[in-house]
Amino acid sequence: MNKIPNYILYGENEDEIFPDYLHIESIRARSIHHAWNFKPHQHHNLHQFFYISNGGGTVLIDKINYELNDNQIMSIPPLTVHGFQFSPNTEGWVLTLPQQFLQDIIGEIAFLIKPISQTLIHNCTNERMQNEFIYIFKSISEIHSANQPMRNFNLRCYTNLLIGKLAEMFPFAPELNQNIPQQKQNFVQEFQNKINENYKQRLSVAQYAKSLNITPTHLNRVCKSVLNISPSNLIDERSILEAKRLLSYTALSIAEISYELGFCDAAHFSKFFLNKTQQKPSAFRENTLINV
Amino acid sequence: MNKIPNYILYGENEDEIFPDYLHIESIRARSIHHAWNFKPHQHHNLHQFFYISNGGGTVLIDKINYELNDNQIMSIPPLTVHGFQFSPNTEGWVLTLPQQFLQDIIGEIAFLIKPISQTLIHNCTNERMQNEFIYIFKSISEIHSANQPMRNFNLRCYTNLLIGKLAEMFPFAPELNQNIPQQKQNFVQEFQNKINENYKQRLSVAQYAKSLNITPTHLNRVCKSVLNISPSNLIDERSILEAKRLLSYTALSIAEISYELGFCDAAHFSKFFLNKTQQKPSAFRENTLINV
Repeated sequence: MNKIPNYILYGENEDEIFPDYLHIESIRARSIHHAWNFKPHQHHNLHQFFYISNGGGTVLIDKINYELNDNQIMSIPPLTVHGFQFSPNTEGWVLTLPQQFLQDIIGEIAFLIKPISQTLIHNCTNERMQNEFIYIFKSISEIHSANQPMRNFNLRCYTNLLIGKLAEMFPFAPELNQNIPQQKQNFVQEFQNKINENYKQRLSVAQYAKSLNITPTHLNRVCKSVLNISPSNLIDERSILEAKRLLSYTALSIAEISYELGFCDAAHFSKFFLNKTQQKPSAFRENTLINV
Repeated sequence: MNKIPNYILYGENEDEIFPDYLHIESIRARSIHHAWNFKPHQHHNLHQFFYISNGGGTVLIDKINYELNDNQIMSIPPLTVHGFQFSPNTEGWVLTLPQQFLQDIIGEIAFLIKPISQTLIHNCTNERMQNEFIYIFKSISEIHSANQPMRNFNLRCYTNLLIGKLAEMFPFAPELNQNIPQQKQNFVQEFQNKINENYKQRLSVAQYAKSLNITPTHLNRVCKSVLNISPSNLIDERSILEAKRLLSYTALSIAEISYELGFCDAAHFSKFFLNKTQQKPSAFRENTLINV
């Protein structure tokens, strides 16, 4: 049998993505043939994503009924038994993705495995999130029907984005720390957010503790129990990360970087960098083999 | 030295993307320190992408001056000598990506290798394209500065999108057919577009030839010389592709699929499918291991 010529031409390897990378259609397109009703069924190796932009109805998932409304995103893993009764004229999309392609996206990223292996029905109340989902589904739908060059590459890109947005909806719960109370983890998360906002001022641990309404001793204890690192080291690591970024990616002088990171002079910064990384800033820059 | 804790927490493997996946900043942020002027320089292992949303100036690339204007996208591969004189208050972004990460994206996709290895200065006259570039650069910029979960995953997603959009700007010129005149290739491309728009009507080769203002004999000759396949086989392959998609991804009956693909009855369609794929439609569906 001949290969599909338009895909050969487009330079993508069709063998791996046959019969198609994914399928997408409007909820309307299939529903009108079934009076907007789908009996409970399951898919063995397909993951489905629904976005309802307008309308609703009910979905039966593993024998439990859930109400569907405007701006709802659903993620239904393989083997989940699901059935629908959509309200007539419901608008939105259903995207069907073979499990194997989803695995390729998720790979070893622990952060994605948990969210994607669960059934999710989420009401997007945030308008920005709504627009982002609509943009993604609309883009996939257009690319899917157009048969343009880069079709499969672009389908993959937007599917990746979708998976990323879905994962963001799940509370942040890393595998590493599952024995640590969620409250402590949230607290450290807040501390990290504050560091990220303020590290260029080189605030002290006492100043961060005050802004978190906590004593420095308590901050030290929580931080060590969750991350196994002291607050002052955590603050320093953030500065070092930024220093490395600026050394690698910009032509800023060491003095300019010192100033940008809140150090009073270049000598002080260089000593700090050497102490933390066993390299002078200039040596680090040279080692990244970048000439600006 | 300790690892950077916020990345460990986020479940991404920071070792591979150190000191950062990419760098992005506004053209203003760096320019104001240099009076909007950058002497000619090169980067050994960094690829740079510029988008000018507003303003302009001149860019010197390998000793040739080019004018810069609103809505211009630039792609500058490593080792290209480039310098800028921006007009004061020029708005836009500069994105710097290590060559190794770009290689990971491009991989074996022949379609991307050529566009990305060349210097590109392109004026985006299409408003949709402008908005897409602005959306991509803005998203990357926000994700870059936020240090949220999924940061590197999302940076990768949007960088992929950017590469895809850039590649789309290049004329379609597959490596396979570089000895075939561009005119013939464009012609076959137009034929393929027509097939894609009309395959559900099962038009004949004569009908397609007529709509292309060409004789069936000529269509046959051009099609065979470019794709090494006859027009009728090309038309049939498009129907088979869609049949496989519908069999794999939907619960439509064989009769419904026959009707959707423009066949007069299911028996005729099944015979056609068997002849082309050596499988009955029902067997193909079973082999994709999907229960709907």
